[in-house]
Amino acid sequence: MRAYDIIYKKREGQKLNKEELEFLIKGYVNGEIPDYQISAWAMAVFFQGMDAAETAKLTMLMAESGDMIDLSPIQGVKVDKHSTGGVGDTTTLILAPLVASAGIPVAKMSGRGLGHTGGTIDKLESIPNFNTSLSRDKFFDNVNQHGVAVVGQTGNLTPADKKLYALRDVTATVESIPLIASSIMSKKLAGGADAIVLDVKTGNGAFMKEFDDAKKLAEAMVAIGKKVGRDTAAYITDMNQPLGNAVGNALEVKEAIKTLRGEGPEDLTELCIELGSAMLQLSGKIKDLEEGRNILKENLKNGKALAKFSEMIRAQGGNAEVVDDLSLLPTAADTVEVKAEKDGYISEIKALDVGLAAMILGAGRENKESEIDLAVGLELKKKTADPVSKGEPLAVLHYNDSKNLKDAKKKLLEAFTITDEKKKKNELIYEIIK
Amino acid sequence: MRAYDIIYKKREGQKLNKEELEFLIKGYVNGEIPDYQISAWAMAVFFQGMDAAETAKLTMLMAESGDMIDLSPIQGVKVDKHSTGGVGDTTTLILAPLVASAGIPVAKMSGRGLGHTGGTIDKLESIPNFNTSLSRDKFFDNVNQHGVAVVGQTGNLTPADKKLYALRDVTATVESIPLIASSIMSKKLAGGADAIVLDVKTGNGAFMKEFDDAKKLAEAMVAIGKKVGRDTAAYITDMNQPLGNAVGNALEVKEAIKTLRGEGPEDLTELCIELGSAMLQLSGKIKDLEEGRNILKENLKNGKALAKFSEMIRAQGGNAEVVDDLSLLPTAADTVEVKAEKDGYISEIKALDVGLAAMILGAGRENKESEIDLAVGLELKKKTADPVSKGEPLAVLHYNDSKNLKDAKKKLLEAFTITDEKKKKNELIYEIIK
Repeated sequence: MRAYDIIYKKREGQKLNKEELEFLIKGYVNGEIPDYQISAWAMAVFFQGMDAAETAKLTMLMAESGDMIDLSPIQGVKVDKHSTGGVGDTTTLILAPLVASAGIPVAKMSGRGLGHTGGTIDKLESIPNFNTSLSRDKFFDNVNQHGVAVVGQTGNLTPADKKLYALRDVTATVESIPLIASSIMSKKLAGGADAIVLDVKTGNGAFMKEFDDAKKLAEAMVAIGKKVGRDTAAYITDMNQPLGNAVGNALEVKEAIKTLRGEGPEDLTELCIELGSAMLQLSGKIKDLEEGRNILKENLKNGKALAKFSEMIRAQGGNAEVVDDLSLLPTAADTVEVKAEKDGYISEIKALDVGLAAMILGAGRENKESEIDLAVGLELKKKTADPVSKGEPLAVLHYNDSKNLKDAKKKLLEAFTITDEKKKKNELIYEIIK
Repeated sequence: MRAYDIIYKKREGQKLNKEELEFLIKGYVNGEIPDYQISAWAMAVFFQGMDAAETAKLTMLMAESGDMIDLSPIQGVKVDKHSTGGVGDTTTLILAPLVASAGIPVAKMSGRGLGHTGGTIDKLESIPNFNTSLSRDKFFDNVNQHGVAVVGQTGNLTPADKKLYALRDVTATVESIPLIASSIMSKKLAGGADAIVLDVKTGNGAFMKEFDDAKKLAEAMVAIGKKVGRDTAAYITDMNQPLGNAVGNALEVKEAIKTLRGEGPEDLTELCIELGSAMLQLSGKIKDLEEGRNILKENLKNGKALAKFSEMIRAQGGNAEVVDDLSLLPTAADTVEVKAEKDGYISEIKALDVGLAAMILGAGRENKESEIDLAVGLELKKKTADPVSKGEPLAVLHYNDSKNLKDAKKKLLEAFTITDEKKKKNELIYEIIK
């Protein structure tokens, strides 16, 4: 077998079989096949695609290229959740304790972020003394005892995906639906989940700007789940404005706590209930989604969800008092309002620009070496379809250093479009693919 | 400027400007841009193509990446000729002295071959003492004094093309019309020609199996010529059977000499007259192609063409007596006929199989290290549309070693298709693109 023939075959639009994909991926990981052949293959895949069977095979090969985590020491059906990323995405912080409060084990491994704000692990580290580096045994024990634990990724997970993704990133071959789908799903499979709920964002602040692309990605990932025997449901959700109001690490933790108190923003709360209900359904715990919604709504009201978060923080060494006293979380030195420059209605909020404004303030990483300022960020005061008067605050910026404040304000103002006519509120969930 | 953005742009079907192509090619040659980005770009070009302006820019960049030969010490318009390669292609051996005999300077640099038989330089080296390694000055002197010289390539010609071609060869990105066109034309431009006649082969023994692809390649190369100010004409010619009858190095030299005597195979003679006439026209020497044809036909008859070949051989140190005594050329130890297994008409001769039969006998190189046996090869006794009786010879194999004879015979027989119905003779020239 030669890499050349496999590239040629894909270039001509033919399907690759398991042996060919295995030859390619194993050869790449062990250094026998050079980068320049794999990048040519990836570009051929960009143009010719891969069918569901090929994509599933590639996914399994990448999952099996490193450690495969065995979650069987944890009792029950383990349902993982993944979001394709957007601006102000605090769902994991809320969903983990919320779903655990309904009796479903949540063993969540998360990453750090490269983008507008940190990742879930960065955010959790704004809780004083919270430990995201548990040993494998301690991680399992915590889930078995407390029903939930969120830790950083350890071990050698999906080295094939890491190597391939790094190559795609510099060869303009990232934007291929089957390659994105297999990258995401390979990590979920290596992580040991029994079932997977996917939150596929679409809109101006999402990786998938167009609904059609998001739908194709969702379908590709659900198809992989089917082929490899893991129940998978994908929710295509709106990212035409930030989700919730907070963008920034500690600010998002505060918003998560408010949401767990039942006092969160409407869109964030609703999405967490929907995704949480989907997780309950895949676990086999409930008859239908409506039952799940009711359980979760109740647990937000009766304090069980917040208590579970508090229990999780304590079990991971953190200061659980934060759930009652938000001032224990990192707080920026100063705030400033960004005000509307005219009357009207918010017709659009470019989520990406909002994220960039937060990043300018120091909330995110421009590159792997950047230091995150956990305290800074912004809170939106207006969302799409809201009426606004000239001089009313659109957002509040939280900052420690006024150096880049002007740029952040400018970026934030650019994000908002105000028109005379009222715009319809954004839909939150466009479609569910199972 | 980043290589990533250039790959992305091409992937999205946009045109690259001169600065972008320059960044890519210069960066690649000096090692700043890695193979894996160039192979991804080449695959994007495979799918998205390049327009005439981009292709011409790339061609000039590759030509200028190394030495640019200055042919101005040679008087007159220098017309080069290039064939895209096929089986039994002896045209250069004939055209060089033939065109020179009409008073047009021919300063020809040729290569060695990797394929069924050697290249022009290998073939010429079957003439005892013939020297293909003249100094630049001696080369120019010979052309000025004798009107013709054929030498091997020296110097650092088109290093960008060499590096890019080697990469394309292992990443399944060879078969891109604009990349093939720019590769060929960059070498012609670096070689210093004022005008270029291209022989683009199409058919079962050619690189371009389909006429449409050959036409696209011809058009792309003529367009490059126009853009860079070199008169270029492309002849799309038949390679659905070998050209002429001889396949093998010394055998082809013998056939060239016979042709220069006016006793060559019809198809080879006609093609040489047509291409030669095109070269005369581009040099400005004649009013129309018909005038060129008449001059060349006359010179084949009156001995001027053969005398010019003899003069060229002598000027390059070779034994010019070969033109009168073919037995002075390398001759194989033995011959054997391959006979028709049934009556009928020759409906097809797979040129590639004929070439492979010659290679099996030792006439060609399987890889760069292979040694060529200059004496071996084969002569076809039948061409397409010829009637044939069972037991009549289809070809004569010339061999030194009987080890692979059986395989060569088998391959040769496979090349021939004999049917009851007479097939029309192949057209020789399908179209001329100027």
